[in-house]
Amino acid sequence: MLDPLLATPAVLRLIDLAVEEDLGRGDITTEAVIGNAATATADLVAREPLVLAGLGVCTAVFQRVDQAITSSELAKDGDRVAAGTAVARYSGRAASILAAERTALNFVQRLSGIATMARAFVDAAGGSGLRIADTRKTTPGFRLLEKYAVRMGGASNHRFDLGSGVLIKDNHVAVAGGVGKAIEQTRGKAPHGLKIEVEVDSLAQFEEALATRADIILLDNFSPADVAKAVGLARQRSPRPLVEVSGGITLKQIPELAAAGVDIVSSGALTHSAPAMDLGLDIGLGDQKARI
Amino acid sequence: MLDPLLATPAVLRLIDLAVEEDLGRGDITTEAVIGNAATATADLVAREPLVLAGLGVCTAVFQRVDQAITSSELAKDGDRVAAGTAVARYSGRAASILAAERTALNFVQRLSGIATMARAFVDAAGGSGLRIADTRKTTPGFRLLEKYAVRMGGASNHRFDLGSGVLIKDNHVAVAGGVGKAIEQTRGKAPHGLKIEVEVDSLAQFEEALATRADIILLDNFSPADVAKAVGLARQRSPRPLVEVSGGITLKQIPELAAAGVDIVSSGALTHSAPAMDLGLDIGLGDQKARI
Amino acid sequence: MLDPLLATPAVLRLIDLAVEEDLGRGDITTEAVIGNAATATADLVAREPLVLAGLGVCTAVFQRVDQAITSSELAKDGDRVAAGTAVARYSGRAASILAAERTALNFVQRLSGIATMARAFVDAAGGSGLRIADTRKTTPGFRLLEKYAVRMGGASNHRFDLGSGVLIKDNHVAVAGGVGKAIEQTRGKAPHGLKIEVEVDSLAQFEEALATRADIILLDNFSPADVAKAVGLARQRSPRPLVEVSGGITLKQIPELAAAGVDIVSSGALTHSAPAMDLGLDIGLGDQKARI
Amino acid sequence: MLDPLLATPAVLRLIDLAVEEDLGRGDITTEAVIGNAATATADLVAREPLVLAGLGVCTAVFQRVDQAITSSELAKDGDRVAAGTAVARYSGRAASILAAERTALNFVQRLSGIATMARAFVDAAGGSGLRIADTRKTTPGFRLLEKYAVRMGGASNHRFDLGSGVLIKDNHVAVAGGVGKAIEQTRGKAPHGLKIEVEVDSLAQFEEALATRADIILLDNFSPADVAKAVGLARQRSPRPLVEVSGGITLKQIPELAAAGVDIVSSGALTHSAPAMDLGLDIGLGDQKARI
Amino acid sequence: MLDPLLATPAVLRLIDLAVEEDLGRGDITTEAVIGNAATATADLVAREPLVLAGLGVCTAVFQRVDQAITSSELAKDGDRVAAGTAVARYSGRAASILAAERTALNFVQRLSGIATMARAFVDAAGGSGLRIADTRKTTPGFRLLEKYAVRMGGASNHRFDLGSGVLIKDNHVAVAGGVGKAIEQTRGKAPHGLKIEVEVDSLAQFEEALATRADIILLDNFSPADVAKAVGLARQRSPRPLVEVSGGITLKQIPELAAAGVDIVSSGALTHSAPAMDLGLDIGLGDQKARI
Amino acid sequence: MLDPLLATPAVLRLIDLAVEEDLGRGDITTEAVIGNAATATADLVAREPLVLAGLGVCTAVFQRVDQAITSSELAKDGDRVAAGTAVARYSGRAASILAAERTALNFVQRLSGIATMARAFVDAAGGSGLRIADTRKTTPGFRLLEKYAVRMGGASNHRFDLGSGVLIKDNHVAVAGGVGKAIEQTRGKAPHGLKIEVEVDSLAQFEEALATRADIILLDNFSPADVAKAVGLARQRSPRPLVEVSGGITLKQIPELAAAGVDIVSSGALTHSAPAMDLGLDIGLGDQKARI
Repeated sequence: MLDPLLATPAVLRLIDLAVEEDLGRGDITTEAVIGNAATATADLVAREPLVLAGLGVCTAVFQRVDQAITSSELAKDGDRVAAGTAVARYSGRAASILAAERTALNFVQRLSGIATMARAFVDAAGGSGLRIADTRKTTPGFRLLEKYAVRMGGASNHRFDLGSGVLIKDNHVAVAGGVGKAIEQTRGKAPHGLKIEVEVDSLAQFEEALATRADIILLDNFSPADVAKAVGLARQRSPRPLVEVSGGITLKQIPELAAAGVDIVSSGALTHSAPAMDLGLDIGLGDQKARI
Repeated sequence: MLDPLLATPAVLRLIDLAVEEDLGRGDITTEAVIGNAATATADLVAREPLVLAGLGVCTAVFQRVDQAITSSELAKDGDRVAAGTAVARYSGRAASILAAERTALNFVQRLSGIATMARAFVDAAGGSGLRIADTRKTTPGFRLLEKYAVRMGGASNHRFDLGSGVLIKDNHVAVAGGVGKAIEQTRGKAPHGLKIEVEVDSLAQFEEALATRADIILLDNFSPADVAKAVGLARQRSPRPLVEVSGGITLKQIPELAAAGVDIVSSGALTHSAPAMDLGLDIGLGDQKARI
Repeated sequence: MLDPLLATPAVLRLIDLAVEEDLGRGDITTEAVIGNAATATADLVAREPLVLAGLGVCTAVFQRVDQAITSSELAKDGDRVAAGTAVARYSGRAASILAAERTALNFVQRLSGIATMARAFVDAAGGSGLRIADTRKTTPGFRLLEKYAVRMGGASNHRFDLGSGVLIKDNHVAVAGGVGKAIEQTRGKAPHGLKIEVEVDSLAQFEEALATRADIILLDNFSPADVAKAVGLARQRSPRPLVEVSGGITLKQIPELAAAGVDIVSSGALTHSAPAMDLGLDIGLGDQKARI
Repeated sequence: MLDPLLATPAVLRLIDLAVEEDLGRGDITTEAVIGNAATATADLVAREPLVLAGLGVCTAVFQRVDQAITSSELAKDGDRVAAGTAVARYSGRAASILAAERTALNFVQRLSGIATMARAFVDAAGGSGLRIADTRKTTPGFRLLEKYAVRMGGASNHRFDLGSGVLIKDNHVAVAGGVGKAIEQTRGKAPHGLKIEVEVDSLAQFEEALATRADIILLDNFSPADVAKAVGLARQRSPRPLVEVSGGITLKQIPELAAAGVDIVSSGALTHSAPAMDLGLDIGLGDQKARI
Repeated sequence: MLDPLLATPAVLRLIDLAVEEDLGRGDITTEAVIGNAATATADLVAREPLVLAGLGVCTAVFQRVDQAITSSELAKDGDRVAAGTAVARYSGRAASILAAERTALNFVQRLSGIATMARAFVDAAGGSGLRIADTRKTTPGFRLLEKYAVRMGGASNHRFDLGSGVLIKDNHVAVAGGVGKAIEQTRGKAPHGLKIEVEVDSLAQFEEALATRADIILLDNFSPADVAKAVGLARQRSPRPLVEVSGGITLKQIPELAAAGVDIVSSGALTHSAPAMDLGLDIGLGDQKARI
Repeated sequence: MLDPLLATPAVLRLIDLAVEEDLGRGDITTEAVIGNAATATADLVAREPLVLAGLGVCTAVFQRVDQAITSSELAKDGDRVAAGTAVARYSGRAASILAAERTALNFVQRLSGIATMARAFVDAAGGSGLRIADTRKTTPGFRLLEKYAVRMGGASNHRFDLGSGVLIKDNHVAVAGGVGKAIEQTRGKAPHGLKIEVEVDSLAQFEEALATRADIILLDNFSPADVAKAVGLARQRSPRPLVEVSGGITLKQIPELAAAGVDIVSSGALTHSAPAMDLGLDIGLGDQKARI
């Protein structure tokens, strides 16, 4: 079942776009060969090891196509699943299951890809306090779902959008005339519930951010040595700001960053470059069982 | 400019979903620091070598956010572009450009990723007659755009949806009681402008498909030897059916398949697993030029 | 029940447009006179002989207005129905049934009109192999439904839209510089699952189409003699192309065209000029039965 | 140009549904043969005598597909137009004009069909005071446009929807326990700007409606003699109610009803059974002129 | 339950806008603290005396967020409710109830505010024949709901929109060249079921309206003495027109206007300035009961 | 002009809902009397002193109805405006201006009402550091606009929605088993850019919140003495939390709360109970000038 808080109007509209694009002109082959009478049962099976995410969306697609399709979910989002594991079973009119199949799979494969990559990053951080966070580099229209998949992989969310967080970047700094000025200007205007985060690209900027009491300081493309220095400086402040690192961070760098005492690593690759995981439907029509 | 035939109601709705999700609550940082008066000019720059796709969509996002943003496109979709190349320039209110930036990039990075991978496959097929085609394994809601990106990479489109092509798969065969029966049933019912394609998983099925005059035969997970045999058998028929190969085909296998005389290779990875290409905005505010 | 594969997002949006336009400001008369407590049972009755189509859409309108309305369908789409036949029964809140009545009827009357005219054409073709097909001259927004009604009348669908079939027309020929050139250009670019159809307006063009192996040749306003010649020429080819005839074809011409060996007749009148069939609701409120 | 008051959100949504259904997967033939560079000029020509309606919608479709298409309208809605008359000219990218053509024509052909039939009814009423009115038997989703077409044919609109007029029908009468009671109940509750109309099926009911001062009395399936009697009775009242006649009225009956002094004839056929009028595009590409 | 005739596509779209704006990025606090397992029961309680309206919309919001939430309504729209009265009870997943709470309350508080103010006006008119009516000064997007709330307060609706009533205002009079000419022009063109209402701002205009037999005459900012004169003049006519008064009428003026024999008072304040009524949820989680 | 960052898809959809509900069936009176040829110029005039907000939305409505309407804005949002001030001028087709008038006014009257009330609160806080903030008690669908109006009145925004801020309320506390536990649980899970706010209803809870380092503590219905104590306790902490007061705060209480050193007062009345401000159109048709 799709969690009610994921079944927002925008997500339902995205599902509708997807159903319309694949099914909006009918399913010629199935109409010709299968007809409306046949029923089927289909198992959604992981074809490789993965962290599951999007099972509810997958179910929602089946039931959007045909509300008479019944589902039983055998695993839940966030589970690590071995190859060959059936994670859900769908039953109903064969024509409906075949019609919904591709769209349903396209969602769950993509979201599981994200959860699986997020989990790998989190695991690499080990027991350290390092938080792995996503970015706004998400598939257009998929942000709520992809940020959910990130959480299902054990990682954490950065701000949802431009209205739910303050992040002062280089252009803001340039216009304001310095890191400190930008921070002061924002503090007076942003909603009082938001911390002030600023992106810096040098230790000098970092120290200016410290001095004006930024809540979070994002190190953009710092060398490992400078990261270490920045963490050291931050720890001398009370209250101490959070130190975040970003910019093409790979899985391999995570342990070193964790060891350096960085608070947060944020990575766009989690959402923009995670390859789809392979899940498929094993469909049984009548007394046979075929793999699609 | 977004080609009018890509600016369909569904694509515009997808752009709206994307703009709403990133900008639907405003841009707190920019409102606080930049205000409404400042103007800016931004160059869209390839940060790595790539095949460009989605430039028009990128422009459409900027102009959806603020129709007063002007654009000049310096390259066109389908172009191979070197790292460092500016492919478009956008000018207008700084607040609007900063607000649209992330969403616009998210589109063009993803679509260029697809075009770049498609181009690699097409290049691997060299001057052979082998067609590289996509599948329906696209990002939900993005099919029109992603199939366009595939064409921009020089590859070809398979059927758009379940209503614009006939593809008889294992379940259809199972219900119909054999490849031949499924083909006959479909021929009487499908629109007369569509060819009959059937997926087979053995040489026996392949021969049955030949005998019932399938127009296209899709070999699912055939060994190289069996692919060669199938191509040989097909060439003895007049009219001769097209032979298509699918199922986890990698870039490395393309030359061999081309040499074997296969007509079409279809690959889901083109759309479901192409990593995003790195493009960014170089934004100049007043007399400065900053890299975001 | 509306077949799930007809209940696409676009069809539901059309139903919503229709409900909104008739009911978006309430039903003043019924609110004043009937109130919310009364229940009713209504029979949907054919008032003239017809081929039924759109019963599911009719039911969907009732249930869109009030999901508590129950339905039992007494006939099915495609059935030939005598005057006076009740084809469905709806029960529920009287105010809801009265509110939905007009919109529900507007759908089923129109779609049954199309099915009835299609059936007349198919019957006129008798046992010949002549296929009666529709065109894209459908009511805007109704294509999926109207093409379905055509099938319910026993006829066949031409391409759904500009993206699901190749049809080279005079303007394409003019730009390409000839029928043959247009065909060659298209063959290299269209998805491999689509046949190449070309419209010709002379025997000379027909022969050029034959020579370049068009899959389907559409004769536009040919004389009966020329139709016969074209069919004869086509039969000498292997593989032989399909011959389609179009352009203001009336019911009366069908037998002659069938006899001439034409493969397909396509007719826009099936969808753009079929008069609505008369179906009405017989509503019983409490112990009375009134005809509306 | 589409009159701004017809360009409502609902009408634009209907146009979007229509554009999406024909163009949502691109135009394969035109993309293959014509490309993006060619331009064209197209004349919209009446192929038979007709009353024009929907020219603005036609233009809106062209410009929805490609806002760079320019238009010049050579006639206006409501004009009687001879066969062969060019009523508008469109210029722009050839690919866009070809893509929009079918959808644009589908609208204007249908709406002109309605205006032409309405005009025939109005003409049949001659100089009498008889008003020809439409009903709610319109194409779902098209009510605003079709009622506009009715006015363009010189006829008049009945209530737009269930919320903009009071019409007491047999079921309301049955529940209320008589014509008079239904009228009284409604008078107290309906907005004070609406007249009370009641449908009667006998002279007895008609007299009851007179007695309770209905503002408009609709005679359902009355014989000519009874119509005459009813008109006579109505004329004796002050204020005198309007007398409306409905129920399968044909063009032939109009003069007689006009002569009888009926105030209004309402006819569903105007909108549900008017055949489409034939209008087509003459398209010139470069230096040639082709008829499509 | 939301009355089916209020659950129009437009109202559902408004509810979706509201749900999306509050819940479109999830509920961070509840997800962190409450989780998905906890259930809750919540009583909707009037915190001050009020006339209830919008209970069905409130329920619809809860069930739009989570269709598994069950409801039992303990009062009905139109009821006068004392402070402390529980008017509905909702049970289901605690996370869903907390997520929907604010949006659901925002609807019912606003609509009850309108009903309560309408009821005060109606009560002030006492047993006189004076009708209290609303205007088109409603919250954009809320017209159907707010006019419903007006009826729940015992008042009456003026025309719904510009297409369901005739109201000739000063600008129309100016263009037509006088009250009488404006009335004549309209009578010939408006649907025959609509009365002709004209707004006048002097006794001279009033007499012109009488002379041309306006059905309803709206007195704009008349002095009490002139109102009385106008009522007197109207009573001498047969048929006598309705006299309506508008323009910043306050509750205090109602008895005097009722006594003067005015037929209708229309007031924009009913919808544009009614303060929200205080209703809240008392939520019990497990064995505790907290007031939010 | 509507600021591009307010012209989100959701706001445009709301404008469409509003235009559709008032204009979706045309404007009968204007069509009958004014026709399409007349032009007009209309001044938007404040009829009472107010703080302007929503001028851009007002303009957007006019131009949504007719994009040929030109506007010149004579004041800007946030301005304090005297009675009689013209704040904008619109010119174009008279029929379009009359059609758009009511809907345009409904927006700007409501939003100016909010800005005006917000300004009164801010002024009452004088030069103190007290921030006046809104809540989520906004008109459903209007949140972005109403929070903008609040800022135009000089006040500040609280969190936009449930996903852009953490606010632990009584139910969260109850489930977590105490203020401290709730804070700890949230800190580990909420995005790192959000402060932790907790609502407390006693000094004991306040001290627990202090001890667990809540970033913001919201005092719900505290007595003035307890407010003072809480502020005193907060000031002893480093970093010191923000103290917010809420719960039916009236304008009169603001100076006292400011004097007490409270950081933020949040008030739902700003958005749920601000009466509409009176703005109207003075329309000149040809050479006359009429007040509507």
